[in-house]
Amino acid sequence: MSSLFKQLRVHQIFGANTDVGKTILTTALVRASALKEKSVFYLKPISTGPIEDADDKHVMRFGGKLANKIHAECLFRYNEPVSPHLAAKLMMPGDQSQLIPSDENVVNSIANRIRAHAGSISKHAHMYVETAGGVHSPCLSGSTQADCYRPLFLPTILVGDSKLGGISSTIASYESLLLRGYIIDAVILFQDQYYRNWEYLQPYFAERGIHVSAVHRPPEVLADPSDNFKSTEDYYNSITSTSEENTIPKLVDYLDNCHNLRLHELESMPRRTLDTVWWPFVQHGFVQSENDVTVIDSAYGDFFSVCKRNILQEPNATRSILAPEFDGSASWWTQTMGHAHPSLTLAAAQASGRYGHVMFPQATHLPALNLAERMVHDGPGRGWASRAFFSDNGSTGMEVALKMALRAFSLRHGKGMDSGAKKDLGILGLKGSYHGDTIGAMDACEEGVYTCEWHDAKGYWFEPPSVGIKDGKIIISIPPSISATPKANEIRLPSLSSVYDIEGRLRSSLARAYTLYIERTLEKLEKQGRPKLAALVIEPLVMGAGGMIFVDPLFQRVLIDVVRGRRSGSSSSWSGMPVIFDEVFVGLHRIGMESAGPLLGIYPDISVNAKVLTGGLIPMAITLASKSIFEAFLSDNKAEALLHGHSYTAHPIGCEVANKTLQLLDDLQTSDDWKAAQERWRPLDGTERTVWSFWDPTFVRELSKLPEVDEVMTLGCVLALKVKDASTGYTSQSAQTLLQKLRQFDDGGIGLSVAPGGDAFSVHFRTLGDVAYFITSLNTSPSVIRSIEDRIWKTIAR
Amino acid sequence: MSSLFKQLRVHQIFGANTDVGKTILTTALVRASALKEKSVFYLKPISTGPIEDADDKHVMRFGGKLANKIHAECLFRYNEPVSPHLAAKLMMPGDQSQLIPSDENVVNSIANRIRAHAGSISKHAHMYVETAGGVHSPCLSGSTQADCYRPLFLPTILVGDSKLGGISSTIASYESLLLRGYIIDAVILFQDQYYRNWEYLQPYFAERGIHVSAVHRPPEVLADPSDNFKSTEDYYNSITSTSEENTIPKLVDYLDNCHNLRLHELESMPRRTLDTVWWPFVQHGFVQSENDVTVIDSAYGDFFSVCKRNILQEPNATRSILAPEFDGSASWWTQTMGHAHPSLTLAAAQASGRYGHVMFPQATHLPALNLAERMVHDGPGRGWASRAFFSDNGSTGMEVALKMALRAFSLRHGKGMDSGAKKDLGILGLKGSYHGDTIGAMDACEEGVYTCEWHDAKGYWFEPPSVGIKDGKIIISIPPSISATPKANEIRLPSLSSVYDIEGRLRSSLARAYTLYIERTLEKLEKQGRPKLAALVIEPLVMGAGGMIFVDPLFQRVLIDVVRGRRSGSSSSWSGMPVIFDEVFVGLHRIGMESAGPLLGIYPDISVNAKVLTGGLIPMAITLASKSIFEAFLSDNKAEALLHGHSYTAHPIGCEVANKTLQLLDDLQTSDDWKAAQERWRPLDGTERTVWSFWDPTFVRELSKLPEVDEVMTLGCVLALKVKDASTGYTSQSAQTLLQKLRQFDDGGIGLSVAPGGDAFSVHFRTLGDVAYFITSLNTSPSVIRSIEDRIWKTIAR
Repeated sequence: MSSLFKQLRVHQIFGANTDVGKTILTTALVRASALKEKSVFYLKPISTGPIEDADDKHVMRFGGKLANKIHAECLFRYNEPVSPHLAAKLMMPGDQSQLIPSDENVVNSIANRIRAHAGSISKHAHMYVETAGGVHSPCLSGSTQADCYRPLFLPTILVGDSKLGGISSTIASYESLLLRGYIIDAVILFQDQYYRNWEYLQPYFAERGIHVSAVHRPPEVLADPSDNFKSTEDYYNSITSTSEENTIPKLVDYLDNCHNLRLHELESMPRRTLDTVWWPFVQHGFVQSENDVTVIDSAYGDFFSVCKRNILQEPNATRSILAPEFDGSASWWTQTMGHAHPSLTLAAAQASGRYGHVMFPQATHLPALNLAERMVHDGPGRGWASRAFFSDNGSTGMEVALKMALRAFSLRHGKGMDSGAKKDLGILGLKGSYHGDTIGAMDACEEGVYTCEWHDAKGYWFEPPSVGIKDGKIIISIPPSISATPKANEIRLPSLSSVYDIEGRLRSSLARAYTLYIERTLEKLEKQGRPKLAALVIEPLVMGAGGMIFVDPLFQRVLIDVVRGRRSGSSSSWSGMPVIFDEVFVGLHRIGMESAGPLLGIYPDISVNAKVLTGGLIPMAITLASKSIFEAFLSDNKAEALLHGHSYTAHPIGCEVANKTLQLLDDLQTSDDWKAAQERWRPLDGTERTVWSFWDPTFVRELSKLPEVDEVMTLGCVLALKVKDASTGYTSQSAQTLLQKLRQFDDGGIGLSVAPGGDAFSVHFRTLGDVAYFITSLNTSPSVIRSIEDRIWKTIAR
Repeated sequence: MSSLFKQLRVHQIFGANTDVGKTILTTALVRASALKEKSVFYLKPISTGPIEDADDKHVMRFGGKLANKIHAECLFRYNEPVSPHLAAKLMMPGDQSQLIPSDENVVNSIANRIRAHAGSISKHAHMYVETAGGVHSPCLSGSTQADCYRPLFLPTILVGDSKLGGISSTIASYESLLLRGYIIDAVILFQDQYYRNWEYLQPYFAERGIHVSAVHRPPEVLADPSDNFKSTEDYYNSITSTSEENTIPKLVDYLDNCHNLRLHELESMPRRTLDTVWWPFVQHGFVQSENDVTVIDSAYGDFFSVCKRNILQEPNATRSILAPEFDGSASWWTQTMGHAHPSLTLAAAQASGRYGHVMFPQATHLPALNLAERMVHDGPGRGWASRAFFSDNGSTGMEVALKMALRAFSLRHGKGMDSGAKKDLGILGLKGSYHGDTIGAMDACEEGVYTCEWHDAKGYWFEPPSVGIKDGKIIISIPPSISATPKANEIRLPSLSSVYDIEGRLRSSLARAYTLYIERTLEKLEKQGRPKLAALVIEPLVMGAGGMIFVDPLFQRVLIDVVRGRRSGSSSSWSGMPVIFDEVFVGLHRIGMESAGPLLGIYPDISVNAKVLTGGLIPMAITLASKSIFEAFLSDNKAEALLHGHSYTAHPIGCEVANKTLQLLDDLQTSDDWKAAQERWRPLDGTERTVWSFWDPTFVRELSKLPEVDEVMTLGCVLALKVKDASTGYTSQSAQTLLQKLRQFDDGGIGLSVAPGGDAFSVHFRTLGDVAYFITSLNTSPSVIRSIEDRIWKTIAR
């Protein structure tokens, strides 16, 4: 992960093309740094071509009398003067190709060298990492350098191209670096007096906040080696001497300044944040110290790169100020392909470049249309949905769903109902539900922790039976309200798979008990006359914000059956009351399935997707509706349309990012990692339809047996861990306290290799009162998950 | 604007660098097209270097016996073999530099040639437009080609680089094209048997849905001209013959296929949209025909590029299927810098590449922190705000504002108030208010058109006096409820500036009348005991969705003064009840000022910004709050925090796009266009504080005198036009009917030159019942605005 050291200023040097003078200008930088009495480290990660021409040799050769201050090295060397991926292939043909170093190898090797140098110095030093060829020249594995080196997130110098066409290659290279989020401190290039590219590029980059240094061209290569050496040496002397007009020494000072500003910025961010930002869901009364603010400098894959304030404040720190922190809640359950995935960035950029945003009412554009079709016909809406309605987030998507359901219900059953009665139409749901923080979505939930002055819960909420693993056993916990006999409060099932075998369980006595209980409750409510229930709203299988409650799926299925009067799932019109699935959290494979409908054996009339939908990049939601719900809004009166819309409805960037995400999810579904995880969870009885998790079944079971742990449960990416605690609920700190060590930096070297760069890492996790939960991305590698499991285990079972 | 013709397939050819074989491969394409019995047009917009080496000459020279089918031309020719911007400068030095063709000139000239060719053919033909150098080589004006040619939005062929380093330059060039949204149909490059770039690039681009053609290298250049000609001719013959393995003829077929698929896609989009999409605010019962669906193929600056279905369906159409349509509502009031502004795309891309999205509670990242500081200290919050709270759109931003205000009020005044009473706390506002479509935001408005079953309006809304220009006169219309004498219902003021001179008007008798009326009404409400008012919520100066109602600013000022008990604006704690400014529509210069506070001479306790905030690209909102509001949520109880948050709270992309937007707005404020518009509106009396508009004052006045027009009003980007009509309100069609002609295609050549490419254009406008409104971006050029004024005038005064 991004390394940043107080005493060692490191820059990576990318070229706008091959043969633009990268090595010459880097050598000049190295010499100028050494002239400033600095130790200088030069690193060429990958070199191709004969050793006598190698860049690290050139650097040492022209280190001259400064050579004692300069350390130059190369990590991977190949003889053929071609692109690294080809050079490696030529050296390791055919069955040796597995010997070609992976991106991870390369990145970890560079990170090791940086760490080693940072540890070896006693005063300020400089380091230059010179890449090969252009920004997108392939690395050994074949991925391009701009992508391969991204985990290191090193501050960057771009060597521009001074030749004809060089303006273009310089700007295009700059944009490719920008797309990976790199901090570009400077552009440096030769002054070609004919093409004069620097004259164009200086104001161009100044506008973009980037410094451009233009340096005299080197002399022509001379035939005689010693003449050539002398002339080159003179050249280096002339451009690195600290005379007034020389740009290289000035650039070195400028880069020092960039480094210091970055340190200062990281130092100042917590205070500035505490002074201006109002965080969501945070009691600011508790956050008094700058140490309590997580400064996220960048993010990549599963990891944040966070600032370690204690190291930043150590006077002679030799450890990196930035360290990886596993994003253990997938950033509030949004991350899908990990942070900063280039495919999603490019999808966003392309839509932005083609449309920006364009208004949507009575209009269409490809990103929105493709997404609507995918979601309706070949996604969560498959088999039941007819329309896609776009809004901005899960909460607004649920407001739309509620507006749809209430209208459909009141058109059919609201004859003679006055507007007051319509305002009081209620929701049937489950205790612990959460549908978002806008007030309409809140009103569909019980009043509890998530409340506000206007929260006016409308409806009735059943206390649901739940599924969990307690002391190694799969247990359905039945609340006393359902189970007449206290003894039957817990039912044990042989496997998770059997819990989710709905068709099998529909014939059980428990199903009959659920049915009876639900029917009686609804009859009682009907007799009371209020609340007048108009829609059934559930989060299928897991209630997230309510505390990661895994609801007994049989209860949800029976509830829907009862409400619909046992209507068959294929009927084209809703019956009883419209059924809404809030799949904002659970949908699109977060819990190991695209949608809960097929597992429950029943489809909703309305459903909502968000979060994973846009791959963890930007907000957007889709509310799907069946034909009969849509038709409730058709009339010859404009005011009877669904009068809901947001300025950025169906914004092309969100739609295109969603299209790309769904495509990447298709690929993941057949990936080896997914297949292996599914295989681990396949029950012994060999049933085909099953549930599965990215977390290891043995780990999960053993965890549930620990004395501190009350209950564990997992599906898909989600691992929930309920701590034994007398005081439960949202304000409980018990889970936080138990697992606090995970967030601490000093990991004693556990799993050193799984974080980018092989860095020691901490784990950012979230709690909901006495429940701690961990949520991975959908492409988190098994080795990272095993490593997190190991840490959780060691933290609790210490 | 994007030209697309049924019979003429046009591709632009970009090079990954200079000297990659662009002309040779284009010549091969031209020959292969001609061999397929097509007319072929070759266009070199800009050529630099000696005429004997010019690319168009090469194409004709090697047209051979096919030359009768080939038409090659060059538009701008410069002798010096350097980048076009430099070649032009060398030819037009110093005081002649104004003779260098502008980007608009270049684009219009190309568009003219394409139109001319499309009109000249009777059967299918091909056209190739060969650019100069690399994708970012500067055009004559100095902007790079990828940007300069973007308005034409031509389907693109990228000529890849087969040399060492060519993988990088090809991918980087591809990404720069992607950032501009270009449709890239194919990559073509030479097969270099040593570097083998094509072997890498073929699978790379296949993954990205792009076809790669690799072609044998041309022979070495021979010293003898006639030998060289012969060898070149043989080469062209060999690569363009229609033999099995030849890629060039196959590529021509492939490009034909891309063209046909695009036509087919445009043809199918309306039906597919009508079958799957549920639009916001649209009565689908009214939209039965595919002709009623606006297909937006791309957008640029102020214009959509829309598909003209009638032309698409003409059997022998010679006009372009795509035509520009002026985005006359700034896409629901969001557009700021016009569509697809490269700076905003790059800002989005950089944030995506650095962070993706990262969770925000108790964390910080630079894009969010910089934005919060800007908004609080150096933006709309200047002088009063203390904190920035992020949410996803104007509606959620308002829900946050309401939650803040209700909590602050009930903490101070809610002692002994039960939760039922808190649910009934009411809002003081104005009739015609609109704060978004989530139910909490709706409840802060009267029940009217924008309603739903759960809408439960809580509060009291004054009927406000309004400002308008009637028959050339500036009129304040006082509703009968305020004015006791019917005669005084209309008050005339000398200028718009005098209307907005609040300090001056505070001493008027009207101010006293307002004060008395408001005080009496509030006393009466207090006596009634309900609604118990807890917050004053206003859209300062203009109520947008309510019908572009320009409220008398004096009334709003007096209302706030009365509510606050004439508290001075500088007090640090709120008084009376918290005051919320909903500046989602009016804020950030949409109506010619950053915020209405300074003009009203008073600041809110809470305010909301969205729309312009993110430059018209993606959704995000910020709710600003004063210190005393923030402190109402500080406690030692976690559950008393502001429990509102969205998954993507403070998403880095949105924050970084907002930061860039605010920076661009800073530049605009000192731009010549803005100064000129302000100058036009400066009142004769020379007062310094004034209001202004992008629309011409004379046009506005004259428009108001037309017999069909009841009233006109303008501020900043907004022009509102109320039509004389017996039936008013949301469902009225009168404004739509009056202005229908603006949306029609055949513009009789009015303002031909202002749309990109000089195309004929239509005007997309929106109505709210009997009000039609037009809203420009904040950088719409005066010539475009004049042209729209001209059309509006001619449409109504026909």
